[in-house]
Amino acid sequence: MRKGKTFIICGPSGVGKGTVVARLLASNPTLYFSVSATTRPPRAGEVDGVHYHFLTKEKFREWIDADEFLEYAQFVGNFYGTPRRYVDRAMDQGRDVLLDIEIQGAEQVHAKRPEAVRIYVAPPSWAELERRLIGRGTEDMEKIRSRLERGRQEFAVAKDFDYFVINDTVNRAVDDLLAIMRSEHCRPDERIAEINRH
Amino acid sequence: MRKGKTFIICGPSGVGKGTVVARLLASNPTLYFSVSATTRPPRAGEVDGVHYHFLTKEKFREWIDADEFLEYAQFVGNFYGTPRRYVDRAMDQGRDVLLDIEIQGAEQVHAKRPEAVRIYVAPPSWAELERRLIGRGTEDMEKIRSRLERGRQEFAVAKDFDYFVINDTVNRAVDDLLAIMRSEHCRPDERIAEINRH
Repeated sequence: MRKGKTFIICGPSGVGKGTVVARLLASNPTLYFSVSATTRPPRAGEVDGVHYHFLTKEKFREWIDADEFLEYAQFVGNFYGTPRRYVDRAMDQGRDVLLDIEIQGAEQVHAKRPEAVRIYVAPPSWAELERRLIGRGTEDMEKIRSRLERGRQEFAVAKDFDYFVINDTVNRAVDDLLAIMRSEHCRPDERIAEINRH
Repeated sequence: MRKGKTFIICGPSGVGKGTVVARLLASNPTLYFSVSATTRPPRAGEVDGVHYHFLTKEKFREWIDADEFLEYAQFVGNFYGTPRRYVDRAMDQGRDVLLDIEIQGAEQVHAKRPEAVRIYVAPPSWAELERRLIGRGTEDMEKIRSRLERGRQEFAVAKDFDYFVINDTVNRAVDDLLAIMRSEHCRPDERIAEINRH
């Protein structure tokens, strides 16, 4: 059986990554969406193992020491991370894995697993990203400007990514992602193994 | 406008590459199929510029000296080559280009244009390739064995190719090729240029 591959998805705030990822998961039911671990307490309605793996700070530190995270970070006093074990289990089952993480996390995963495919979901233009952030109507202009600035800084890092997917329409972005995932299974090592099995 | 990309297709004799390429061209009418130049005389029904660009030996040598070939070789006294000019014109028009060439030619193009994407069309297994060659019923066993041996030698070179497409069914092979061509247009350089144009 073919082994699964890991696909890392990053993108600036406001680009519409959540919608694209939801559509991608709907169109490919075998895809495993990695659930993060966190030390923050569950909110109402959040289910352990579905929204997050909820860990105590002690447990989280144990996992860090045991190299159980592909990446992790601390935000406002809480830890967030990608547990290695669920990703590896899914790949061993032949399922592709989607990591929807921050760009700093992507760098950590890339250092540990250079074979993981890095994809940046980009806006059609910076002006369009600004329009989308303003259109959400949830933040004042100062906050929006700071998000845009952060997006531009991330963009400089993302230049080294394997692929850029432009989210001008969700259909185009999803079709691009499906093509990328399909083509990455056409790499010589995987296919030569397939030929030799027969 | 986006620029076209060059895709090199190689594969062993008997793998069914011709059928796959025909289906690929039918499903993507903007794709430009590179027409080779040759010094051999046209056969009945062959049209200049369609089946081959027919050149005199003198002209062919002039083009070699002017670096007008992406690759060329000599077989039984005649020259065959891929003219650079038609490939470049198609790419400038935004069309992707398909080069259906021998593996030695692929190596020459790769040396000149490392950005050209190299795809190897492989059989599901060596046993299956042998069955297909025998099934054609056009050659004796000695010739078939020599084709298989050559296929295995090429295979060692093809390990360095970007992609392997297994032709177990034509549908799967064509869908893999379409995915590869689509995903190769999601490389950061091309997409960053697109974002900056807006």
